[in-house]
Amino acid sequence: MREAIEDLLDGYAEAIDDGQIERWPGFFIENGTYQIITRESHDAGLPIGILYCDSRGMMEDRVRALRTANIYEPHAYRHLLGRPHFERNGDGFDVRSNFCVFRIAQDGETVTFATGRYLDRVVEDGGALRFEARRVVLDSRRVDILLVLPL
Amino acid sequence: MREAIEDLLDGYAEAIDDGQIERWPGFFIENGTYQIITRESHDAGLPIGILYCDSRGMMEDRVRALRTANIYEPHAYRHLLGRPHFERNGDGFDVRSNFCVFRIAQDGETVTFATGRYLDRVVEDGGALRFEARRVVLDSRRVDILLVLPL
Amino acid sequence: MREAIEDLLDGYAEAIDDGQIERWPGFFIENGTYQIITRESHDAGLPIGILYCDSRGMMEDRVRALRTANIYEPHAYRHLLGRPHFERNGDGFDVRSNFCVFRIAQDGETVTFATGRYLDRVVEDGGALRFEARRVVLDSRRVDILLVLPL
Repeated sequence: MREAIEDLLDGYAEAIDDGQIERWPGFFIENGTYQIITRESHDAGLPIGILYCDSRGMMEDRVRALRTANIYEPHAYRHLLGRPHFERNGDGFDVRSNFCVFRIAQDGETVTFATGRYLDRVVEDGGALRFEARRVVLDSRRVDILLVLPL
Repeated sequence: MREAIEDLLDGYAEAIDDGQIERWPGFFIENGTYQIITRESHDAGLPIGILYCDSRGMMEDRVRALRTANIYEPHAYRHLLGRPHFERNGDGFDVRSNFCVFRIAQDGETVTFATGRYLDRVVEDGGALRFEARRVVLDSRRVDILLVLPL
Repeated sequence: MREAIEDLLDGYAEAIDDGQIERWPGFFIENGTYQIITRESHDAGLPIGILYCDSRGMMEDRVRALRTANIYEPHAYRHLLGRPHFERNGDGFDVRSNFCVFRIAQDGETVTFATGRYLDRVVEDGGALRFEARRVVLDSRRVDILLVLPL
């Protein structure tokens, strides 16, 4: 099961790092949720995050907007993931993992863009593991306004 | 055994990243040692490091001082750990792993705070794996005076 | 098999991080290839990279030059590797993994030197796993002229 969970987490990061954001919604179940929130808000139990999607359709809209508008400065990400920690909970798994995302701007400049934790709820869905919920808890409260690609 | 060793290493980092430094001494045996040393001193075989604790009690004192004095600039860490390399040696294990620690200041600024290696001696202690010795070998000789949280 | 592949990848990084670059060619088969290329060139299918070695002998020459000339600014690397993704292909394996390399200058300054992917072809060679081909795909087009140690 560890292998299968790590494959899901790695595959997700790989799709984004490769610039294949069209594949991003497919890592979630139909009514899956995706949220980016600061550690400060998460620890305070505040529900309001930086970004929230509550279905695969909403994620697909976001991908379309990104591809169409194309107003953002083009850049790429590179994820480095820590080993996940997980436990079975009902019919799925609660998974926690550390991450660091580097951002490479078009001129080649590389910065440590974000560090934090993924807090995930993973379930089996049609023979594959998918996210029922993925919460990205950012360590820093300094959030780049240009944040556009999913983390 | 790999699973158990990785759980120990990850759990240690998780406790610190979560700000639960009271849990830090519990990862060591009663007479466990903890040392931070630069690579330069380590390679030269110099015994003097930046920080040295030779018992769980000494670590508990350090935690208490941190919580009481509270004079340091509040910040958080985020560890990313490499896959450990280990071998059995007598009744325990010699373990080596790479690490990178990011430091997130209260204003949100994130810096690559430290990189290096953990050189560990891990033993079974009352049914759990614990550090008999943990040596943190820092790559850089530039050490932040404000170094306060354990690495 | 995952263990054996991860041992190869970790061992390679460890040799370089420890400054034992004489061990570097030994991770390749006799006619193994090593290439550093930017993502831009790789994606465009351009064959020209930043560095190319097509045999262990060529790598040994490079190591000798590094040790003899010694004109470069001394520095050290620290690798952090992502979990590899691999599949059997004929008599070997196609392996992909993410990496981040930090560079620590002699004055202690630490920078995120390079991020990217390793695209490897790994085969059994005399009882051990070795690289038949290792392609280092750098995320950034900004390449440090001083690039001297293998990545």
